[in-house]
Amino acid sequence: MAEEEALRKQADTVRRLKQEKASPEEITKQVSKLLEMKSAMYPEEGKHKFVLKTPKGTRDYNPKQMAIREKVFNIITQCFKRHGAETIDTPVFELKETLTGKYGEDSKLIYDLKDQGGELLSLRYDLTDFDIAGHYDIMIPDAECLKIVHEILCALQIGDFLIKVNDRRILDGMFAVCGVPDIKFRTICSTVDKLDKMAWEDVKNEMVGEKGLAPEIADHIGGYVRLHGGLSLIEQLLQDPKLSQNKLAQEGLEEVKQLFKYLDIFGISDQISFDLSLARGLDYYTGVIYEAILLQQPNDHVEESLGVGSVAGGGRYDGLVGMFDPKGRKVPCVGVSIGIERVFSIMEQKMEASEEKIRTTETQVLVASAQKKLLEERLKLVSQLWDSGIKAEILYKKNPKLLNQLQYCEETGIPLVAILGEQELKDGVVKLRDVVTREEVDICRRKLVEEIKRRTHIL
Amino acid sequence: MAEEEALRKQADTVRRLKQEKASPEEITKQVSKLLEMKSAMYPEEGKHKFVLKTPKGTRDYNPKQMAIREKVFNIITQCFKRHGAETIDTPVFELKETLTGKYGEDSKLIYDLKDQGGELLSLRYDLTDFDIAGHYDIMIPDAECLKIVHEILCALQIGDFLIKVNDRRILDGMFAVCGVPDIKFRTICSTVDKLDKMAWEDVKNEMVGEKGLAPEIADHIGGYVRLHGGLSLIEQLLQDPKLSQNKLAQEGLEEVKQLFKYLDIFGISDQISFDLSLARGLDYYTGVIYEAILLQQPNDHVEESLGVGSVAGGGRYDGLVGMFDPKGRKVPCVGVSIGIERVFSIMEQKMEASEEKIRTTETQVLVASAQKKLLEERLKLVSQLWDSGIKAEILYKKNPKLLNQLQYCEETGIPLVAILGEQELKDGVVKLRDVVTREEVDICRRKLVEEIKRRTHIL
Repeated sequence: MAEEEALRKQADTVRRLKQEKASPEEITKQVSKLLEMKSAMYPEEGKHKFVLKTPKGTRDYNPKQMAIREKVFNIITQCFKRHGAETIDTPVFELKETLTGKYGEDSKLIYDLKDQGGELLSLRYDLTDFDIAGHYDIMIPDAECLKIVHEILCALQIGDFLIKVNDRRILDGMFAVCGVPDIKFRTICSTVDKLDKMAWEDVKNEMVGEKGLAPEIADHIGGYVRLHGGLSLIEQLLQDPKLSQNKLAQEGLEEVKQLFKYLDIFGISDQISFDLSLARGLDYYTGVIYEAILLQQPNDHVEESLGVGSVAGGGRYDGLVGMFDPKGRKVPCVGVSIGIERVFSIMEQKMEASEEKIRTTETQVLVASAQKKLLEERLKLVSQLWDSGIKAEILYKKNPKLLNQLQYCEETGIPLVAILGEQELKDGVVKLRDVVTREEVDICRRKLVEEIKRRTHIL
Repeated sequence: MAEEEALRKQADTVRRLKQEKASPEEITKQVSKLLEMKSAMYPEEGKHKFVLKTPKGTRDYNPKQMAIREKVFNIITQCFKRHGAETIDTPVFELKETLTGKYGEDSKLIYDLKDQGGELLSLRYDLTDFDIAGHYDIMIPDAECLKIVHEILCALQIGDFLIKVNDRRILDGMFAVCGVPDIKFRTICSTVDKLDKMAWEDVKNEMVGEKGLAPEIADHIGGYVRLHGGLSLIEQLLQDPKLSQNKLAQEGLEEVKQLFKYLDIFGISDQISFDLSLARGLDYYTGVIYEAILLQQPNDHVEESLGVGSVAGGGRYDGLVGMFDPKGRKVPCVGVSIGIERVFSIMEQKMEASEEKIRTTETQVLVASAQKKLLEERLKLVSQLWDSGIKAEILYKKNPKLLNQLQYCEETGIPLVAILGEQELKDGVVKLRDVVTREEVDICRRKLVEEIKRRTHIL
């Protein structure tokens, strides 16, 4: 405690010196002494004192990245709203049990909070989901979810994509008719899911070698999971001697057929592939499942388009919401979630590679002056523009040089400059300059807002 | 492990029964058995099994609340953008030392995360801040911050407000000339800050009784801190025999005088009060400080408007950013932060009290049918509308009744219904119905999008 008292006294000394406007040398000396005393008392703190870093696995977003991020979020949000979405928000942390209930095995991905007095809390993730909950006619909401994925991927303009579709019931039925023991459904499912990255031979080896499946069963599965196509494949499988005997598979196929009819009506079935190898990891899906992948641009060296990873996915999970109902009532649900971080990374790379300059503000006009002593006139004009809803800036200097003001516009992408000078003030006008063309026109003060709005169609 | 094996077998049984479409009774029986086994094995989990609640101190936001929340956020964001703001984003959790460095004594308010492998992490808060950083001419950015607070509070329409302004240098200078010992500046400061809730007599008692200040010093302070006003008060204090002898106070007063000139130009000085009792808690302020309070509507019983609490605040903090610079370089900063939760609560109460119906979606039109068997036609039309950027919905039923479709619009506030029937399809038109007036007009399919856009000016 004597140490703390000494520390407090030293802090008071520093404060007094600052108040008394003591010499910078003297202040710096006493501040250094204070910091030394602090780091001696709190060695842990002292060690990191001047390091500002973010936690592992996280990042700060600078304004340029945020501009891209906002663009991505706007596209997604606008699409969700176009489809009548309501927004809900949940606390950034949840009871741990709520999250692990939903995410099941993936709970390693969850950050836990320290005990806050009896509650075990974790950070939630998955913020860009769209879900349709309720008892509705078959595959209508499911088709809308796929339409949404399609609209978003088109709007983002991040390249060609393909949406793979399957159904958990078809998968389960297929495993059953192939002779996979019930207990191995899940593990074989996860092996099948690797077909997008591994050759069939390797997948088979894993099934037989690691998972202990009979080779003929693996081959039987192989005959199915390498199939992908559209309506005609579904028709073919509905006639399949074995699958047609399995009630679950039959039900799944009938409904996926219905789904493809709706996708046809929506005009998007060309980019949708019924793919028997799509399995998706999460346990809670009960019906249709889907996953959107980006395709690399085909070039001379690569004959076929290669998948470069999933950017969206989802499916039907009719059992999950009931988990939290005291009476166990189930609420049928179908949802889609966008891989926002992945999309953002792709957009960021694309924007960096392109020539396009990314603006980080939406400022429409800089209020500038050509002569000195016009700060108050600039303040008056910029204030009028703000009050009229115009996005406007001034430089925070009393007498900025005109050249600096014009340079600022070029650097930040502000398209217009409203220049004030003695003559303009006398004439009741403003010189409006187009930053790119450098054209200047005198505009009457009363018509300035209208003219700026006319020239800039920024959101 | 034997228990786990048994559990896995029971889970397989349930899965198999479901696959085989066994009787619901049988499935329910086996599911119950499974749940019993689980809760016996994991008694802690079982206890909370069917409770879905949020952590203490947090809340979920339902769609109606989210609609209000989005409105508030939009007003604030639009204002920030109007003033040329760039957006940055930081991870939802930070190194604990980064946060405690900023928030100082208030670290009790911080949620810590469990150790994630050596890093001490905490959740950050304070998301709606606007800051201007850089070396600029005196009080220009500070004036803009106050203009921003003023614009936001006007736009939110949450009642009359007052923005109190003071300066840390004036406060410190005042304490010095009154004879407060350096060591007691902080504690006396926090007592002064209570003048908005306590009578002067009680504040004085605290200073003298609890904080051990001489009564004559307290009275001297009392002579100052009960002063509030505008430019003329500042002029008066600049002439004050004692304050004018204190360099710090003199500097602060000169600059606040400059600030008020700018506020006059912005036309907002009527709602700004120079108030010597405003102290604000946080240590890191170095210059101007401000706080916006809402005023209760005066009525017959209350003679004067009473403050109902702070909704925004901020100030200049020239030392803080240097804390994280390895070379200790300081970056002058002035900022404002909006009390978003408080604003949101007030808006929520106001909206609930008013007759106004709060829409939770932005849907412009419901695509409906008057007869059965028109699902595919509805899907086709709604898809065309989505592709044209119209916010549209359908009911997810094959053959919904027209009455139900109209009722849905009334409940959710959708203003238009596009009705399809055999006749309309034959004629190549859609019957467009105004939900409120019930007027119906046939619109040519090709002109539908344009007509919907014309009639709905929803964002």
